[in-house]
Amino acid sequence: MDKLILESAWLDGGPRDVLVADGKFANTTGDLSPQDREDAETVDCRGLALVPAFYNGHCHAAMTLLRGYADGMPLDKWLQECIWPFEARLGPGDIEIGTRLAVLEMIKSGTVFFSDMYWQREITMRVVEEMGIRATIGVTIAENLEPPERIEEHFRFLAEHRFETDRVRLAVMPHAIYTVGENVFRRCAEVARAEGYILHTHLSETRREVDDCLRTHGCTPAELLDRWGALGPNLVAAHCVHLTGPEMARMADAGATAILNPCSNLKLGSGIPPIAAMLAAGMKLGLGTDGASSNNNLDMHEEMKIAALLAKATPGGTAETLPAARALELATASTAAAYGLRAGRIADGCLADALLVDLADERLAPAHDFTGNWVYSADSSSIRSVLCAGRFVMRDRRIPGEAEIVAEAERAAARLAGRPPRLP
Amino acid sequence: MDKLILESAWLDGGPRDVLVADGKFANTTGDLSPQDREDAETVDCRGLALVPAFYNGHCHAAMTLLRGYADGMPLDKWLQECIWPFEARLGPGDIEIGTRLAVLEMIKSGTVFFSDMYWQREITMRVVEEMGIRATIGVTIAENLEPPERIEEHFRFLAEHRFETDRVRLAVMPHAIYTVGENVFRRCAEVARAEGYILHTHLSETRREVDDCLRTHGCTPAELLDRWGALGPNLVAAHCVHLTGPEMARMADAGATAILNPCSNLKLGSGIPPIAAMLAAGMKLGLGTDGASSNNNLDMHEEMKIAALLAKATPGGTAETLPAARALELATASTAAAYGLRAGRIADGCLADALLVDLADERLAPAHDFTGNWVYSADSSSIRSVLCAGRFVMRDRRIPGEAEIVAEAERAAARLAGRPPRLP
Repeated sequence: MDKLILESAWLDGGPRDVLVADGKFANTTGDLSPQDREDAETVDCRGLALVPAFYNGHCHAAMTLLRGYADGMPLDKWLQECIWPFEARLGPGDIEIGTRLAVLEMIKSGTVFFSDMYWQREITMRVVEEMGIRATIGVTIAENLEPPERIEEHFRFLAEHRFETDRVRLAVMPHAIYTVGENVFRRCAEVARAEGYILHTHLSETRREVDDCLRTHGCTPAELLDRWGALGPNLVAAHCVHLTGPEMARMADAGATAILNPCSNLKLGSGIPPIAAMLAAGMKLGLGTDGASSNNNLDMHEEMKIAALLAKATPGGTAETLPAARALELATASTAAAYGLRAGRIADGCLADALLVDLADERLAPAHDFTGNWVYSADSSSIRSVLCAGRFVMRDRRIPGEAEIVAEAERAAARLAGRPPRLP
Repeated sequence: MDKLILESAWLDGGPRDVLVADGKFANTTGDLSPQDREDAETVDCRGLALVPAFYNGHCHAAMTLLRGYADGMPLDKWLQECIWPFEARLGPGDIEIGTRLAVLEMIKSGTVFFSDMYWQREITMRVVEEMGIRATIGVTIAENLEPPERIEEHFRFLAEHRFETDRVRLAVMPHAIYTVGENVFRRCAEVARAEGYILHTHLSETRREVDDCLRTHGCTPAELLDRWGALGPNLVAAHCVHLTGPEMARMADAGATAILNPCSNLKLGSGIPPIAAMLAAGMKLGLGTDGASSNNNLDMHEEMKIAALLAKATPGGTAETLPAARALELATASTAAAYGLRAGRIADGCLADALLVDLADERLAPAHDFTGNWVYSADSSSIRSVLCAGRFVMRDRRIPGEAEIVAEAERAAARLAGRPPRLP
């Protein structure tokens, strides 16, 4: 058995020894038996708080290569004039390099899982396996970007594989209702339901998407998903900025999850998701960063703080809406649960994914309220070490190969943008 | 002459040697003469970008002691039931300790100046002088909290002193239109104008303030300031969340500055300042963090990113509103200018206040757009060193006495809250 004891880690207001075994928390009571301690590796965690790691519910990891490439543009123009032409030049090697930069950045900021809607899924899987974190990786379907024969290949892949390791799973990811037609979207929903996959899509991201949907289909986007047979407990819908009251009620009723990406929505001028109303409707919610080209980072701590702040300014919101503990839950256990992971809490039986946070950080003082300080005051730089599945993926802020990952990403991005690389 | 050469610092897309002399940038062209180099201390800045330091336009520094003390409450209740009773117990020693923690946190996150509306101004001045940064420190006037004889003492102090050093200045700070009556507010405005002081106040922070003002005075808050003779180029008004179109036009016309504190406004449920409309009205704008009890940190980098994102979602805003370079300007040169400082740019003749930022940081890659990456992607942890007035106040992320400042703040805050301190 693979055993680790986190000695004197701060948890629930005091230091205690925590046992990790076979990638899960095995004893978090602080009362370890001699048997618990037998053959266990120990790590000194004095002065470090043990807190849940982050789960990123919506991302396009390799798009780190496009960070800052075309800022200050609205979504439609940004996609059509800048992002899609740049992406058309991305080779498999570029996607590997961009994904490595993304995973590096996520680990540094405490994220151990991401849901990835992108291309070259095998490459992404390999990078995630190698770097030691988790992902749900999309079989991405976009009829506007790929010919019918490629779409058929994706469905064949889904029929022939049931790829799943401890840390990496597949999901069916039709891009959006405006890039995937009714027939293909229905097939995505059917295969996901039949094979037990998560169905992940963009939903109601911009006002224009809603207006086009109303004009073309005579209903709102979530109503269209419902009509297309896609609205169920395995639906994880990103954005949901412009949902109506009836759509919120229907999604809550169906047990679908909305993944909020407030930074990206603000940056692209898409609006603010109606968080207070979503909470009041009893919707399942999670958080994601979206890609680094519209955020422009993959820092779930920032996303959590901004969601907690914004919620209070949405219609029906007050200073009491989405308090710190609930915001932390959205960024951890709720997002993990949307992807079928029992994780995001430091509790017996949960996946041993966690952060060791430096209690001496000036932003965690004074100690009136640790959770409040963690959500509203600290940033991800107070994270000293990151555990995923009971193993350290960052220790004392060091990640193997870091400098080379950053340098390689700069070289690839410069080549793709047709500019000289910035010398180190 | 006190001379320093920042060797090979990255500026405007390439490395160059930058001369600092007598606390100002003396030669930023990259072309230093032998005379420039004579008797100069040199610092190796390879791989570090030289960027303007932050100026915090509105703060209550010592309130770091209340960080996380009463989260999740609306402004009025929060002030009356939690904050003011806690503050009533603060002694001069506590204010010194809280201010030290604030200055430590500000330096760590790249801020070299703050405007402080609080009590015990002499203590705050001393801490700022000792720790090496700048401040404009309030002679704070609040008729709801102090008896008339104390208010008279403040005016006597203003009449008798013209305290000003290189780095520390005074300003007249009537708290708000709802805590200071017409007579005293008019005297504040008069003495500020006559003596050349900045006049700093809270303005139009909550809907309730506006409604009460309309009911009591028959006009909106900025109109009331105008009527009271307080609206001029020396007015620096914090918050301005609920300004009307005519108020924006009048403030723009008068050359007054609005200091936006979007995190605090969101956290207390006060709303979102109409940033797009303010920009369209040609208003002078700056940024501040407010106190750590309503933000909950003093990180101007976060404030800058959140302002840049939020602006795009305010009425009239689009993805093009408040681009990265303009957001950076608000957090640096514009806020500095509001307080009469020629600073916030790396340019000959400007105050030598600057940050050295690690270009190897993963969030600054790829290098398509440094300013975009700095504003939207990086966080303050990529700041390696901080210069104020040409001297290092942080070097390689170390600040003298750091651990003791944090520990002392925890001891004081625990005593004030009546709980045991968290042991290190």
